[in-house]
Amino acid sequence: MTQWPLPDPMALALEEAQAAAHQGEVPVGAVVVCDGDVIARAHNSPRCLHDPTAHAEMLALRRAAKALGRERLEDCELWVTLEPCAMCAGAIAHARIAKLYYGASDEKGGAIEHGPRLFEQPTIMHRPEVYSGIGEGPAAALLRDFFRARR
Amino acid sequence: MTQWPLPDPMALALEEAQAAAHQGEVPVGAVVVCDGDVIARAHNSPRCLHDPTAHAEMLALRRAAKALGRERLEDCELWVTLEPCAMCAGAIAHARIAKLYYGASDEKGGAIEHGPRLFEQPTIMHRPEVYSGIGEGPAAALLRDFFRARR
Repeated sequence: MTQWPLPDPMALALEEAQAAAHQGEVPVGAVVVCDGDVIARAHNSPRCLHDPTAHAEMLALRRAAKALGRERLEDCELWVTLEPCAMCAGAIAHARIAKLYYGASDEKGGAIEHGPRLFEQPTIMHRPEVYSGIGEGPAAALLRDFFRARR
Repeated sequence: MTQWPLPDPMALALEEAQAAAHQGEVPVGAVVVCDGDVIARAHNSPRCLHDPTAHAEMLALRRAAKALGRERLEDCELWVTLEPCAMCAGAIAHARIAKLYYGASDEKGGAIEHGPRLFEQPTIMHRPEVYSGIGEGPAAALLRDFFRARR
């Protein structure tokens, strides 16, 4: 059986997730794409950076906004290996991200299809288009291997 | 009538909010206190910093974590002039903040007593003690004046 190839941004996000694991960080990676170009990539780094907000999505959004010299990314897509948490979903809304693609879903910490389901809240100021399950297999495997090795 | 004086951290947070207004940013300020000392202060700066995540709380949490050289702030309090949004409430939980004090409530963007009520979600990994309404009057007045001047 031939596996349908992963879209390039998700393959890159998975590379970032792997880099996180090598640094002892929970393996999550993210990429921001604007007009077909990757303008930012990042991996989860709260321990290394001593920054409780340093999730992959937050760092990628901040780097993309810096690269473009503006606070809103309404023409951008965010690709991330794991379902975003409430903090990251809130940041995605503040940044006005057009499309969100994520890999594995996260029953415990996810805030898109779990928990507060932030983009379904009536008070949310922006809702991106959301596509889930892309790269779910390898994204979940990275997390499983990481936590298994630490037990 | 004598007004009960504001606690020092909230007075400082209000000073920060005023600094934000002077820079054309929505006036919100925040302060982190650890063992009775102010270890970080910040004001809302998404426009100036080209950073959609640069709310006062986020900057204050990041500065506090950097100052302490660790990602968790379980012995710290966060003081902020406005009810935190979902992004900031998520960050407060990730940082394991012990106590949250806020001034004005925010019907539209707040995520503590409005919208997703994040700390009441069963999946939230940490719930700080929450005290609201401290400095509510001046905090709300700053916001009202700011938006009135821009209309």
